[in-house]
Amino acid sequence: MSTNLRIDGARLVSRLEALSRIGATPEGGCRRLALTDEDKQGRDWLLSQMQALGLDVKVDAIGNIVGILKGQQQGPAVILGSHIDTVGTGGRFDGALGVIAGVEVLAALRDAGLTPKRDMAVIAFTNEEGARFHPDMLGSYVWAGGMSVEAAHAEKDSEGVVLGAELNRIGYHGPEQPGFLKAHAYLELHIEQGPVLEGDGGGLGAVTGIQAICWLELTLRGRPSHAGTTPMAYRKDPGLAAARINIFANELTKTISGQLANSGVIRVEPGNVNVVPERVVMSLDLRNPNDAPLAETEAAVRKFCAELSERDGIEISFRDLARFPATPFAEELIAGMEASAAELGLPIRRMISGAGHDAQMMSRLCPTAMVFIPSIGGLSHNPAEFSTDEDMVKGANVLLSAAWRAANA
Amino acid sequence: MSTNLRIDGARLVSRLEALSRIGATPEGGCRRLALTDEDKQGRDWLLSQMQALGLDVKVDAIGNIVGILKGQQQGPAVILGSHIDTVGTGGRFDGALGVIAGVEVLAALRDAGLTPKRDMAVIAFTNEEGARFHPDMLGSYVWAGGMSVEAAHAEKDSEGVVLGAELNRIGYHGPEQPGFLKAHAYLELHIEQGPVLEGDGGGLGAVTGIQAICWLELTLRGRPSHAGTTPMAYRKDPGLAAARINIFANELTKTISGQLANSGVIRVEPGNVNVVPERVVMSLDLRNPNDAPLAETEAAVRKFCAELSERDGIEISFRDLARFPATPFAEELIAGMEASAAELGLPIRRMISGAGHDAQMMSRLCPTAMVFIPSIGGLSHNPAEFSTDEDMVKGANVLLSAAWRAANA
Repeated sequence: MSTNLRIDGARLVSRLEALSRIGATPEGGCRRLALTDEDKQGRDWLLSQMQALGLDVKVDAIGNIVGILKGQQQGPAVILGSHIDTVGTGGRFDGALGVIAGVEVLAALRDAGLTPKRDMAVIAFTNEEGARFHPDMLGSYVWAGGMSVEAAHAEKDSEGVVLGAELNRIGYHGPEQPGFLKAHAYLELHIEQGPVLEGDGGGLGAVTGIQAICWLELTLRGRPSHAGTTPMAYRKDPGLAAARINIFANELTKTISGQLANSGVIRVEPGNVNVVPERVVMSLDLRNPNDAPLAETEAAVRKFCAELSERDGIEISFRDLARFPATPFAEELIAGMEASAAELGLPIRRMISGAGHDAQMMSRLCPTAMVFIPSIGGLSHNPAEFSTDEDMVKGANVLLSAAWRAANA
Repeated sequence: MSTNLRIDGARLVSRLEALSRIGATPEGGCRRLALTDEDKQGRDWLLSQMQALGLDVKVDAIGNIVGILKGQQQGPAVILGSHIDTVGTGGRFDGALGVIAGVEVLAALRDAGLTPKRDMAVIAFTNEEGARFHPDMLGSYVWAGGMSVEAAHAEKDSEGVVLGAELNRIGYHGPEQPGFLKAHAYLELHIEQGPVLEGDGGGLGAVTGIQAICWLELTLRGRPSHAGTTPMAYRKDPGLAAARINIFANELTKTISGQLANSGVIRVEPGNVNVVPERVVMSLDLRNPNDAPLAETEAAVRKFCAELSERDGIEISFRDLARFPATPFAEELIAGMEASAAELGLPIRRMISGAGHDAQMMSRLCPTAMVFIPSIGGLSHNPAEFSTDEDMVKGANVLLSAAWRAANA
């Protein structure tokens, strides 16, 4: 690699600012829900940026936008990417940074007059957030062959609007077959969306994979009764059972390595001060970098619930909301991220990704890795989401170096 | 007392059936929300029953209906009563039984040609349930001087309809001043609304008083964060804090005599599977037959919350929703209930009332007591609320005997 090769930092920041004006919210964030008018404006802008760079720009049947820089030889491409859709109350960085950094990587090569050995490309994947259409990571999921184009087109938003119709309406139902560009490697720059890097001194993160996830919905049924006239011994209180399960799952995180647990949904019915609850619906979001300890956690929770049910007379039923195994990234690419950071004199640490990303889907197709930059305060999916210009440029330079390395290996 | 004096059981059951046809619901319950058309129909029916008995029927300015049987001497009256309004999904017995049993007590005396020494009366109090207008026990509260007629008239239901206007609309804004009939004693028959009597073999209950009550609303604020990207040590989870408080309050009931605790409201925000909660609103309904242990319980809960707040960084604020001291009933009347049951060969046990009743307000004015009959399955405020004909007649006979005793003492 030409070790003097660098991202044009000012241009990267300026491009991100330009994109963040599309769907800008009064709170300083962005609202570009997938396939809305704002998303279309963002796509149109991105397309024009790619075309101005001289990339070969293609759109596939699920609306993924692909900008290709031809290499010296035929064969699979080194793909960079992320997404430009946001959640309803999104920030300016999540997704957008990865796409723009990908564009800047190709721009830097063009500026330097360099042609990589392999083809290189940047992709903006459709509907990564899942805030409008299910599932999340839809565009990369379809690209990776996990879901058919037809099934994806039939998805409806909460108001019954059909995804395929929206793709046509905004003009992004393209002619290409998703996955048409074969992948040699996939690399993605993203904000961390958590507090670890900032808390650790603000360096970069070489992401080792995406942790395994198990989302459970528990429905607990007791017996509604009058909170003034029913002695404690007669009660069957599913609210109390939910409290015990929440605390139990939390305690497990202290003994099972890497384990996370959250109960974000707790709905109590009928929800009156003087009525002992009849029914509680609660969620458990369990994650672990490794599959085995996650399975151990889930089994322990289920055993605890069975005992609680037996002892306290609470009926407990389970429903799977989501379940994904751990996605380990490719060691040679993780090491490539570290080597690139070292060359640039930037501190970097290995870490797991707590959230899902398009990289998770792309890892079904090819060796994959990610680089994270710090999120100030750990905030994300929030108008106050923030990363510094300096960190964005650092992350993009690592992406550039690692991509160049992969494209010429 | 004429020890052969008995309630006409068949007539009592038939009158209760007649009233329960007014506002009857498909599920077998009743819906006679205060001052609605159904309540007016119930009132009209009750008025006609009282008039047919030859009672002197009066309506006061808050809509309380008073049927008076003149005694041999001037002076305060022995008053029987309860209410005929119901909750939205009410049963057939709550309140209605007490009013109809009062009517049957006076009817039994008339049938037997007996005139008590003191005046006797039966009152149907307005809006006892509090299901339409706040506060509950409004009619008896105004009668007892706890709230002015003007303030009560200004109360609005959840749709902004004014109580005074509704009283006029249904024709029950009467000319009498609430409390116009001075009280020598107040006696009320009611269903237990809990499982204690049925669980104890099905006898009657001589109610020793209404327990003290403390309703608290707690608002817990933590820090919202991503449940995948935020390490456990960085979280401030008010949902977990709420779980600990719920369990702590429940544990207190095992060590503080007579203590009850319920957390019937638990609202978690924002309520997403993958977001560590930001804010929880929870209620605590704490009750105890005695004021001192209730105060001890509340103090222990507040201390626990202060420690939790300090340790886990959760802000916790408190708001009083309701607070009433214990209302002990009059020993001579409680003993009178027991003596009457003994005369009739009926088992009776002393017990506290878990719920509020009009008797609670009347005890501000005069010696007061209640008799409870079993509620099958402990159900109340429910279409499936049920008490047997036999128990209703037993309860009414105890009321008759105790009332005759008080009216001639």
